[in-house]
Amino acid sequence: MNHALLTDLYEFSMANGYYAALPHEDQAVFDVFYRTVPDHGSFVIAAGLQQVVEALENFRFAPDDIDYLRSLKLYSEDFLHYLATLHLACTVTALPEGTPVFPREPLLTVQGPLMQVQLLETLLLNLVNHQSLIATKARRITAAAEGRPVMEFGARRAQGPDASVYGARAAVIGGCASTSNVLAAKLFHIPAAGTMAHSWIESFPDELTAFRAWAKIYPDNSALLVDTYDVLASGVPNAITVFKELRAAGHKPVGIRIDSGDITALAKAARQMLDDAGFPEAKITASNALDETVIQSLLKEGAPLDNFGIGEKLITSASSPVLSGVYKLAALQVNGQWQPKIKVSATREKTTLPGHKQVYRLYHPGSQRAFADIIALADETLPAVIAAVSADPQVTHARVTLKNFTAEPLLATVLAPGHTSAVPTDVFAIQQHAREALTRLPEATQRLVNPDLYPVYLTPKLAALQQQLIDAHHED
Amino acid sequence: MNHALLTDLYEFSMANGYYAALPHEDQAVFDVFYRTVPDHGSFVIAAGLQQVVEALENFRFAPDDIDYLRSLKLYSEDFLHYLATLHLACTVTALPEGTPVFPREPLLTVQGPLMQVQLLETLLLNLVNHQSLIATKARRITAAAEGRPVMEFGARRAQGPDASVYGARAAVIGGCASTSNVLAAKLFHIPAAGTMAHSWIESFPDELTAFRAWAKIYPDNSALLVDTYDVLASGVPNAITVFKELRAAGHKPVGIRIDSGDITALAKAARQMLDDAGFPEAKITASNALDETVIQSLLKEGAPLDNFGIGEKLITSASSPVLSGVYKLAALQVNGQWQPKIKVSATREKTTLPGHKQVYRLYHPGSQRAFADIIALADETLPAVIAAVSADPQVTHARVTLKNFTAEPLLATVLAPGHTSAVPTDVFAIQQHAREALTRLPEATQRLVNPDLYPVYLTPKLAALQQQLIDAHHED
Repeated sequence: MNHALLTDLYEFSMANGYYAALPHEDQAVFDVFYRTVPDHGSFVIAAGLQQVVEALENFRFAPDDIDYLRSLKLYSEDFLHYLATLHLACTVTALPEGTPVFPREPLLTVQGPLMQVQLLETLLLNLVNHQSLIATKARRITAAAEGRPVMEFGARRAQGPDASVYGARAAVIGGCASTSNVLAAKLFHIPAAGTMAHSWIESFPDELTAFRAWAKIYPDNSALLVDTYDVLASGVPNAITVFKELRAAGHKPVGIRIDSGDITALAKAARQMLDDAGFPEAKITASNALDETVIQSLLKEGAPLDNFGIGEKLITSASSPVLSGVYKLAALQVNGQWQPKIKVSATREKTTLPGHKQVYRLYHPGSQRAFADIIALADETLPAVIAAVSADPQVTHARVTLKNFTAEPLLATVLAPGHTSAVPTDVFAIQQHAREALTRLPEATQRLVNPDLYPVYLTPKLAALQQQLIDAHHED
Repeated sequence: MNHALLTDLYEFSMANGYYAALPHEDQAVFDVFYRTVPDHGSFVIAAGLQQVVEALENFRFAPDDIDYLRSLKLYSEDFLHYLATLHLACTVTALPEGTPVFPREPLLTVQGPLMQVQLLETLLLNLVNHQSLIATKARRITAAAEGRPVMEFGARRAQGPDASVYGARAAVIGGCASTSNVLAAKLFHIPAAGTMAHSWIESFPDELTAFRAWAKIYPDNSALLVDTYDVLASGVPNAITVFKELRAAGHKPVGIRIDSGDITALAKAARQMLDDAGFPEAKITASNALDETVIQSLLKEGAPLDNFGIGEKLITSASSPVLSGVYKLAALQVNGQWQPKIKVSATREKTTLPGHKQVYRLYHPGSQRAFADIIALADETLPAVIAAVSADPQVTHARVTLKNFTAEPLLATVLAPGHTSAVPTDVFAIQQHAREALTRLPEATQRLVNPDLYPVYLTPKLAALQQQLIDAHHED
């Protein structure tokens, strides 16, 4: 599917309007950021950058796209010709995929001719919002699993084919070990996971026959689903019978999967039965409508689980299924001169940050964990001592002095006209980046429930520029 | 994207196992149904059938798909050759798209060689679950809007590109009038909706200049966004100025859109200002994080709104983002003889219905509204008097006598080997089918909050078959 038309109509209408009303050369900068974190967390794992870059590198309108736009009878032939021959000339800066990002921080910025950057809004937000949402949920779920492998099992409940494929990718970025989705596994080099469904068991005269048939074909991949009839009365005993036969034939049994019932009680009893039968190494996987809350509860109860398979709650981020990232104008050239821009809202919360910006993560010397982020204007040099202003207007102590820190800039150019992008595409390398970045944030801000607020500041220059534009607006 | 690999790994593993262990000719029947309704409603609007049919008609494995599967080192070369040369030979029956369907009723069934129908599970569920979820949400939202046009505005918050495109399609099936998503509009012949964003306003020196620039380019499409600065102090007065200029030039002003703030208060005041200025025909559109609950509340407060633009709450079905449709084995041939099959679960609720089935909607003579549905075995003729059994095991009065009714069968063949499918593809014709089908259901079951339970029964033959299989299972 060509995604150039995956755009809200008003983007075309505005672009056509800019084409008619404004100089074509003047450039604009838009920032992607969000204000609220899913599941009341304190940060989002940024994801989707590879797909953003690919979409921009392949962005063009096919002749039938132009014909369709012409049929709307809204746009000038000049503008349609412009679209038909469009080659994007945009520069994109972004945080590396997998980076934890906090509210109000630009995680992606696009600079280019106003008409072009306006046209990209919907597609970029769609890609970034979706994958960041799922990566963030996967981070929560894998954190709850405390190192036990988590398999992404949600394809059948994902919101469409793309949601299953790119959702699986994002799930790995957020910490998952594998996916059941074969297409995602192929496209992104993710281990493919899973063994059998209940229908396999039902297709044979009885459970033991079904297990034996499986073990004959997959003697080294015998993760047996034990809850088709009765986990403890039938499933586990039959699994043990087959495991003994496998062992006698020189194979190593894998384990069992429980997909229904009281997982804690069943897993404890099954563990005991497997241990008593001489299979302490056989793994127990749980997979019934789990999420981070259920996993924490199961583990707290001492459920002896080795792996988790997570379906709908992960692939839709069911408890918090929207990441409301926005795309806001930050600066605009007028006759070649840059002007910082702001969207003033009735609430300070929704008033945007003007200008070209950079985000820094701040560390005290000798500390492995950052203590704050600061958003600065891109062209300012951070002084050694900063009279910083809280980016969150709700914070009581809005002004603090920052000193004795090192600053790590987070935004870097990932796409520029005439250059081929080289963003990382190895999802496990991106996962590793995310994991390392998390080890460099305070533990308390990573708590799944009621996390500690992580401070995000503005430099005095940025805060003053914002205030100046607010004041100028009120004088209008 | 080729969707043949959009399958959970275990489907391939089971199919490879069936290929090795069972006769290849034996067929199976699987049913798609669900148990719980999103948002505590009483029914789902079935959707996604066109995409199911297209996926099956185009189902094939590319050479690199086969190479990928081979690389997993799980499957036999015979099976891989079978896949490489596979032409599906499946028969699909389904409810017409747009039909309201109740829990436990098969809304789609697939019959074909066991290996093939097993491979289709994930893809079919993905397509049907997603679109039915969104169509169901759109039905709720458009019902709340009580006839006022609802525009689908959610592309930027959809869970990936497909979710935005097929979600827009499903939103129209559920009752929406238009979409902002240009790609969906093009693909499915949906009116494209929307005018300007705040960034248009901010790209000009002031709001009035921005409105005038718009009106010059789109004199007959002047729906002006009035909340960039201050709705009542700036937006509406500037809109009225431009509307007067448009009228003087012979054009008809369209109206205004409010995207923030206290919609009821702002709409009432704006309505008064527009009326006083001589523009009673100018429409007011609201579009800020709305769903059926907010719309009902706004209308109850008397907000004078003419249109709604609905974003993330619709395109993700945010309050209930999963439809948990399942795909369950109902019958299996063993050496050419059909055997009804059942999944027995610890709860009666999760125990499946065996056999080839048909669903009937029942009407009393002279009544325009159905009073119940009944699920029957496909080969039984409904008698005039039925000692029916509730399909819902929770119902107290589980047995009733049904008489004096006409029965409308709902499942029909939509795809058969060697035949080209002719399912409806006109989304507004499907929307019309949905609307008519709803006028033929009790009003109380369509209530958005606490709907009345609509009875779904089993014929005594189907109920007896289910019980017989449960009993046989316990004797095992």
